[in-house]
Amino acid sequence: MRIGILGTGGVGRTLAGALSGRGHDVEMGSRDPEAALASTDVNQQTDTTLSGWHDSNAAVRVATFAEAAAHGEVLMLATAGDGSLAATAAAGDDLLDGKVLIDISNPLSWSDQGPSLTVMNTDSLAEQVQRQHPGAHVVKALNTVTASVMVDPSMLGGGDHTLPICGNDDDAKRQVTRWLGEWFGWRDVLDLGDLSGARATEAYLLFWIRLYQATGSPIVNTKVVRGRPGR
Amino acid sequence: MRIGILGTGGVGRTLAGALSGRGHDVEMGSRDPEAALASTDVNQQTDTTLSGWHDSNAAVRVATFAEAAAHGEVLMLATAGDGSLAATAAAGDDLLDGKVLIDISNPLSWSDQGPSLTVMNTDSLAEQVQRQHPGAHVVKALNTVTASVMVDPSMLGGGDHTLPICGNDDDAKRQVTRWLGEWFGWRDVLDLGDLSGARATEAYLLFWIRLYQATGSPIVNTKVVRGRPGR
Repeated sequence: MRIGILGTGGVGRTLAGALSGRGHDVEMGSRDPEAALASTDVNQQTDTTLSGWHDSNAAVRVATFAEAAAHGEVLMLATAGDGSLAATAAAGDDLLDGKVLIDISNPLSWSDQGPSLTVMNTDSLAEQVQRQHPGAHVVKALNTVTASVMVDPSMLGGGDHTLPICGNDDDAKRQVTRWLGEWFGWRDVLDLGDLSGARATEAYLLFWIRLYQATGSPIVNTKVVRGRPGR
Repeated sequence: MRIGILGTGGVGRTLAGALSGRGHDVEMGSRDPEAALASTDVNQQTDTTLSGWHDSNAAVRVATFAEAAAHGEVLMLATAGDGSLAATAAAGDDLLDGKVLIDISNPLSWSDQGPSLTVMNTDSLAEQVQRQHPGAHVVKALNTVTASVMVDPSMLGGGDHTLPICGNDDDAKRQVTRWLGEWFGWRDVLDLGDLSGARATEAYLLFWIRLYQATGSPIVNTKVVRGRPGR
């Protein structure tokens, strides 16, 4: 499958490497791919520069946001939250219209007071992306776990934990649910309804970050436990 | 044990009934106990008026905030979020100092746009209560589940799900963890550190409400699933 990933950070690389390794045709988009490949910044999640990572993942092309969007039959938005709207704007409506856009980004900022949501309550970053690109089928997914767990849920609890998703298009959510199972082995994908559910799953990050801090590891998630029907 | 519960709504009643039924000496506090007992409002969670509920739970006394605070060796703050600071102010520092105060309240407001946090990011309602009463040992707990699950976690998943707590006083958290086990059978109480963890567990409510809406039942919680040590 042709997959376009917007973002070349730790999340984008982890997804690109896993999907390329499973035989998919992956292109990653960057604002400035030449500068990104020349950068000496070592990414925490992959412990290497982009060019160092690319040496081991040569099948993945590094291109512009627009080129990656043009390439993908399905698109994944894996930028930092403060870059999400600029990335999809650079890709442009023509390349996004009618495509499933899996939004993994989170509207977080950090200060010495800890993490804060920059969008919250009656709006979410996913809804902002959807409003900016009405023709795209935005599905919020994968933003509630760390990159290594996104692509390998079996890392904890034998894979018995929950990935919440939401979006306005039921067909798109069904496709994403199937892909998450086929690509990565996600078994418990929970549909939280329309895209306003992203207000919940983005706010959940404040809880997830605290779990990370309290347990000392980002390899942590939650499993939704339901009561018996009728209770 | 002498327990003071601030608040006579559905959460306060459910806690008071369960604790009284287990032999504890419970007093509930209200801003105006006579008016509360005269009210014809039917509470959704208990499906009765306060006086109707009290007829079946006569061992529980309904008193003022200050009287309930004076009564309790341990206190539980079970008001609506917008009444929390007024309730503890009415109780007063003298009656709160040195006591464990389990804060169950959530800073939520509702509009036709859905739920919103009224305190968030770099502050929490629990921290506001703690700042207002520096001598109290505030422990945030039980705010992440519905009242019936608070007092009976076995209602779902055989009780195998998580209750996050936080607070600045380690002894108070140890006591609360023990009480939650003895009173209600909570087995997986997870310490999220100091009281700033309430920023996470209060924001989690936006996620919990969406789980409630998506699953169609408030009998829902999450279990924290951790990776193997060292991963």
